[in-house]
Amino acid sequence: MAGKLTVSPLAPEGFPKLPMIDGVRFAAVEAGVRYEGRKDVMLAVCDPGTVVTGVFTRSSTRSAPVLDCEAKIGGNAEAGAAILANSGNSNAFTGGAGQESVEAICAEVARATGLPTARVFTASTGVIGERLPHDRITAQIDKLVETLHPAAIEAAAEAIMTTDTFAKGATREIELPGGTVKIAGIAKGSGMIAPDMATMLVYIFTDAKIGREPLQALLSGLNETTFNAITVDGDTSTSDTLLCAATGASGVEVEGQDGFRDGLLEMMRELAHLVVKDGEGATKFVEVRVSGAKHDADAKRIAMSIANSPLVKTAIAGEDPNWGRIVMAVGKSGCAADRDKLTIHFGDVLVAEKGWVAESYTEDQGSDYMKRQELVIKVDLGLDNGHFTAWTCDLTHGYISINADYRS
Amino acid sequence: MAGKLTVSPLAPEGFPKLPMIDGVRFAAVEAGVRYEGRKDVMLAVCDPGTVVTGVFTRSSTRSAPVLDCEAKIGGNAEAGAAILANSGNSNAFTGGAGQESVEAICAEVARATGLPTARVFTASTGVIGERLPHDRITAQIDKLVETLHPAAIEAAAEAIMTTDTFAKGATREIELPGGTVKIAGIAKGSGMIAPDMATMLVYIFTDAKIGREPLQALLSGLNETTFNAITVDGDTSTSDTLLCAATGASGVEVEGQDGFRDGLLEMMRELAHLVVKDGEGATKFVEVRVSGAKHDADAKRIAMSIANSPLVKTAIAGEDPNWGRIVMAVGKSGCAADRDKLTIHFGDVLVAEKGWVAESYTEDQGSDYMKRQELVIKVDLGLDNGHFTAWTCDLTHGYISINADYRS
Repeated sequence: MAGKLTVSPLAPEGFPKLPMIDGVRFAAVEAGVRYEGRKDVMLAVCDPGTVVTGVFTRSSTRSAPVLDCEAKIGGNAEAGAAILANSGNSNAFTGGAGQESVEAICAEVARATGLPTARVFTASTGVIGERLPHDRITAQIDKLVETLHPAAIEAAAEAIMTTDTFAKGATREIELPGGTVKIAGIAKGSGMIAPDMATMLVYIFTDAKIGREPLQALLSGLNETTFNAITVDGDTSTSDTLLCAATGASGVEVEGQDGFRDGLLEMMRELAHLVVKDGEGATKFVEVRVSGAKHDADAKRIAMSIANSPLVKTAIAGEDPNWGRIVMAVGKSGCAADRDKLTIHFGDVLVAEKGWVAESYTEDQGSDYMKRQELVIKVDLGLDNGHFTAWTCDLTHGYISINADYRS
Repeated sequence: MAGKLTVSPLAPEGFPKLPMIDGVRFAAVEAGVRYEGRKDVMLAVCDPGTVVTGVFTRSSTRSAPVLDCEAKIGGNAEAGAAILANSGNSNAFTGGAGQESVEAICAEVARATGLPTARVFTASTGVIGERLPHDRITAQIDKLVETLHPAAIEAAAEAIMTTDTFAKGATREIELPGGTVKIAGIAKGSGMIAPDMATMLVYIFTDAKIGREPLQALLSGLNETTFNAITVDGDTSTSDTLLCAATGASGVEVEGQDGFRDGLLEMMRELAHLVVKDGEGATKFVEVRVSGAKHDADAKRIAMSIANSPLVKTAIAGEDPNWGRIVMAVGKSGCAADRDKLTIHFGDVLVAEKGWVAESYTEDQGSDYMKRQELVIKVDLGLDNGHFTAWTCDLTHGYISINADYRS
């Protein structure tokens, strides 16, 4: 690890106060997987009746824990469920030994909790290609199970950090006709996106009552405009994992309830933004809002072309209102675009329209706007109704320092 | 311009001695388009009978000169041809004024040379979105025409530089059954790829005798494995232009001659490599050789996924043999891949095979290899015969400095 990293200037003031979710308990421990002197393994145990749904990286070189989770995700809720995650080693590209490690950990968690192995979900985040020293983890399972507590979610959020500079949590409480439902989530990731030690892991817990299939459909759908709409460096991890566990303990049925959907969406978006705000080397938080594209898929490609462009991101780092680079990124996306119909705004400042810089625009307006810590870049294609919003950060010397010196 | 840039450590010892190409004359001048005290406009004039072929950026926001060249490229060779290029301003995203500037320049070159405007090809490279002060260029046309000389190609190469740290040229002389054919080419570009001031422009001149259509087919084909196989930052310019002019003055017919094809290929590859070696902030030159993919298109996507990955490129900058990031980049490409069939080499060092690090590999081997200035990363997918080779450079603090501070 590249020494102690400075906390991101975009970090919130502190970890939020998360409510206890009835039916879920947490524990975290120092197992020394790779780092000394810090928590690096977390365990969450959910009561019988908890449905677990998930969304995983589509990488063709995904890790052993991801492959194992994918195989188990459709399983029976009756038994309850456990989630174990470690930082420091991703157990990816570790041949047959990878699956052996996953099985050893699942067997030990199953023994200590009384759950079937089919209901133990694991994740690993850290260096790729080194054998996971799973004995260090299995040696701590009894201690983890003994210390499980409904209020220990912050410790769990800390245990999954790698290059993260702050622990990430968010919550929503939703009033529905049938009663109140709580959601609490934690996330890690210094890239969505990023290798080595910067996989994105997200765990969401709720006491809502909902079937597995409707919850999976909801989670997969909301993921598209939240976690799949952020990027730090365009590099997709071998281990990205989003799990949502619903214990049903509130007794409030939420299927088809817009209030639940909206609350979950807002909370997922908040966690996604926190991941970007802890992007490696980030000093600016940038919303890229594309509208007027031929269709939503084009809008997403254009938004991501802008959000991933090294030249747009270095201009933002330099507080340079270099809108020509946005034109370039629209052009390289391969999507339908018409120079003379394109409109670009920085926040409320009209920058370019009708194929050229706007008559009202001055460089001072642009320069002043770029000094902000949170920026909105709006691009309207003027073609049709396709739209998409992505979030990214700037590309700074900090990113180079973290990643050029990381492992050595 | 961000002050004087240090010459790339990957630069060759000097500009090569290029032969005169019978039927082509060059001139360069200081027009003060944006910079003071340096040549920024070049003119090449080719004799009647010269066929001109071209390949252009596919950006949907391409510049006015590119649109104009595309419209003219199929024209009649009988009249001869002229090529005028300026640095400092790309005349891209400049509304209707962009085309007016192109027409003004073409009209003046036509007047001074006696060529029809349909045979005047222009290019502009530099900042996007600012009106081209074309009067500064047209004021210099007479001086350019007066000073045209067959030996002035080096001055032309210098006039098109922007963030380039050295002028780029290459040549081949090919013995064919019918006689000797000469080719000389110049290029600029500090990215293939890059906006603002780092478009790629390539001009190739030959005294070979060949029809427009076979030369266009040859040029387009060879472009795929040369200029379309390099990347600095994955950002595609609005102005990328490759033109090839064949005067026929040697009287040697080259259509279907493998010797000519091979010579042109080698020279284009050499120029492409020079562009990478002058990549913004580059300290390492990297060949990414992908084989065993399902088909060539997959091999190209995988090679480009590796060559464009910020995490692979920062690892190379840090001389860190972080092969896990290569596994990540293969995985994120979206192409068919099987963890257990993947083989990775650094040069001749076997790094990973059979889904894991190779038994024979040591971290010392990898670290020693990464200290080299020129690296070869070989990835074999073990699936089928698809193959592709790409070239890139590392991603360093220099890139951030050049691009975060560029315009301001």
